[in-house]
Amino acid sequence: MGGSLRGRPGMIVHSEAPYNAEPPLGRLRAAFLTGAADFYVRSHGNIPEIDPAEYRLRVDGLVAEPLTLTVAALRARFQAQTVNAVLQCAGNRRADLQRVRPVSGDPWAPGAIGHAEWGGVGLAEVLRAAGAAEGRGLHVAFAAADEIEMEGEKRFRFGVSIPMEKAMAGEVLLAFEMNGAALAAEHGFPLRVVVPGFAGVRSPKWLMGITVQDRPSNNHMQQRDYKMLPPGMEAETVDWAKGATIEEMPLNSAICEPGERAELAAGRVVVRGYAIASARGVVRVDVSGDGGRNWVQAALEVGASRWSWVFWEAAVELSRGEQDIIVRAWDSAGQTQPSQAADVWNTKGYLSAAWHRVRVRVV
Amino acid sequence: MGGSLRGRPGMIVHSEAPYNAEPPLGRLRAAFLTGAADFYVRSHGNIPEIDPAEYRLRVDGLVAEPLTLTVAALRARFQAQTVNAVLQCAGNRRADLQRVRPVSGDPWAPGAIGHAEWGGVGLAEVLRAAGAAEGRGLHVAFAAADEIEMEGEKRFRFGVSIPMEKAMAGEVLLAFEMNGAALAAEHGFPLRVVVPGFAGVRSPKWLMGITVQDRPSNNHMQQRDYKMLPPGMEAETVDWAKGATIEEMPLNSAICEPGERAELAAGRVVVRGYAIASARGVVRVDVSGDGGRNWVQAALEVGASRWSWVFWEAAVELSRGEQDIIVRAWDSAGQTQPSQAADVWNTKGYLSAAWHRVRVRVV
Repeated sequence: MGGSLRGRPGMIVHSEAPYNAEPPLGRLRAAFLTGAADFYVRSHGNIPEIDPAEYRLRVDGLVAEPLTLTVAALRARFQAQTVNAVLQCAGNRRADLQRVRPVSGDPWAPGAIGHAEWGGVGLAEVLRAAGAAEGRGLHVAFAAADEIEMEGEKRFRFGVSIPMEKAMAGEVLLAFEMNGAALAAEHGFPLRVVVPGFAGVRSPKWLMGITVQDRPSNNHMQQRDYKMLPPGMEAETVDWAKGATIEEMPLNSAICEPGERAELAAGRVVVRGYAIASARGVVRVDVSGDGGRNWVQAALEVGASRWSWVFWEAAVELSRGEQDIIVRAWDSAGQTQPSQAADVWNTKGYLSAAWHRVRVRVV
Repeated sequence: MGGSLRGRPGMIVHSEAPYNAEPPLGRLRAAFLTGAADFYVRSHGNIPEIDPAEYRLRVDGLVAEPLTLTVAALRARFQAQTVNAVLQCAGNRRADLQRVRPVSGDPWAPGAIGHAEWGGVGLAEVLRAAGAAEGRGLHVAFAAADEIEMEGEKRFRFGVSIPMEKAMAGEVLLAFEMNGAALAAEHGFPLRVVVPGFAGVRSPKWLMGITVQDRPSNNHMQQRDYKMLPPGMEAETVDWAKGATIEEMPLNSAICEPGERAELAAGRVVVRGYAIASARGVVRVDVSGDGGRNWVQAALEVGASRWSWVFWEAAVELSRGEQDIIVRAWDSAGQTQPSQAADVWNTKGYLSAAWHRVRVRVV
């Protein structure tokens, strides 16, 4: 099995239990495929230790033939597939919303994201082998092994669901490998779901069961968390029924270098970062070295997979003083990011996708 | 044939030749399916008068069997299909950009959009019947009958192309009917393309030819117009090679009632409009009666087709004085619109999709 990554130096650890950590941005931007040890970890409970010899995946619900599968059986029965895809936390960049007004949850910087080559088998193939019902209005629920304790709630195991339409799209994997190696414990050993384009919460680690059903999961994680709430709804007035389930992630971009509060010499400075547009392509990235008055177009490094991120790089001229370097991206539908974090503020601090600003001091 | 709509009273006519007109917004918002006489008209040249007895559609290029088809032959050989879909001009809401800084093109209000039931046959079926080549990197070019004269250019006939992937998606029609009646001359009689989700320019009227080819159309309309140019590029510095071809349209929304400069009594006012998110759903519409400090969530009227618009309605409290009523929409990926028209300004005035604001006087 993949072993533990907990000791990795340099990670920004938001919480030890549950373990939540993200890499420094310079390290994140150093490789187009993020190494497992640099890949953010978002846990909601314990990190299960699963004995692969004992492990079984159940597939049940609205299926003609329920299945019980070892990882070896998955490998033997189904075609191996790899997908290069980003996973990111719905709370990535939450710190920017926290600066507007308090929000709940860990104050993630722009590092709650990573890009890996995932190896496994297609979820659609497994569902077809089980004779799963198909059609609109159906959902595929995932049950995981991690156990969660929340104030005022009984202990429960993590669970979520995705719409059948997405489950049957070719890109969704049951993954046992990350960048060619077995999954590390923190990333879901021995088996996890990878739902490209969707928020990380819909890609459970330590997957134990798949259930085809006629409604979304009734797990806390699906019903009373990870929803986009309206701007006027505060912690005391949360009405989950009025939230929209977070699935596909919005267009986003971030500056990885230089870092916040860097001291730089005046003149030409190279700025680097990432951008991501879910299923849509990123067609342009604008970078400003003067707080948004002037913009230059960044050079883009694009992967072969539509689920990859884009790496961008631009040189801007900086004048002396405190300067805001800003990035914003544009997608293939001509949509761009809102300028102000205040315009996307929500009490749970999700989907923080306004222009990313880094303040530097130029001497 | 459908006859002419030129005499329709109340249309806002931007130009008589070429004929460019949009309906008043109250009338646009009055019906979920826009009547042909209220549907915006964007012409680039003449409105051809085509004798249906003489009319033939050519299908050629990278096809096994070139076709020449009358409309009767299209009806006889292919299954009739209808799609409820919005068409909108890439310049819809350009007037808001014009207020930031001059742009080229007609100053469209938010009425350069309409929603109709289109009837015809599937483009994919016709391409399959012709034995069209398939695969990435191929394009389907459309040649139209309208003749265009532009300063400094020779006269030419309108032409554009769409990627093969979109052409083979089930929703693209060769349409001979609009809301159950033959197309009017202004809307492309006897046959037009309808490419749901894409800018209107990719849905040519008066369609004469379809060519499967290995590159995008080299027509002026494809190469030197209808591209999203970067913010710093002005009329004198336009470099079309640096523009992104406009295809899928961005998330947008507009207030139709009350109208700009309406005089209203203080208190509760009902605000109505439309929102559109191309293939993505509109999941929420926020309306503010106080310039963006507070927002209420509008009630949504959603159609069965994913290519329809959303009609929304909300009641807001207005205080005395000059007030800005604002609307912004959110799509199923949690993206929302930028707040400022200046943030999406481009010299050609396309994709004007910032928050829509209507100033009213409350007495």
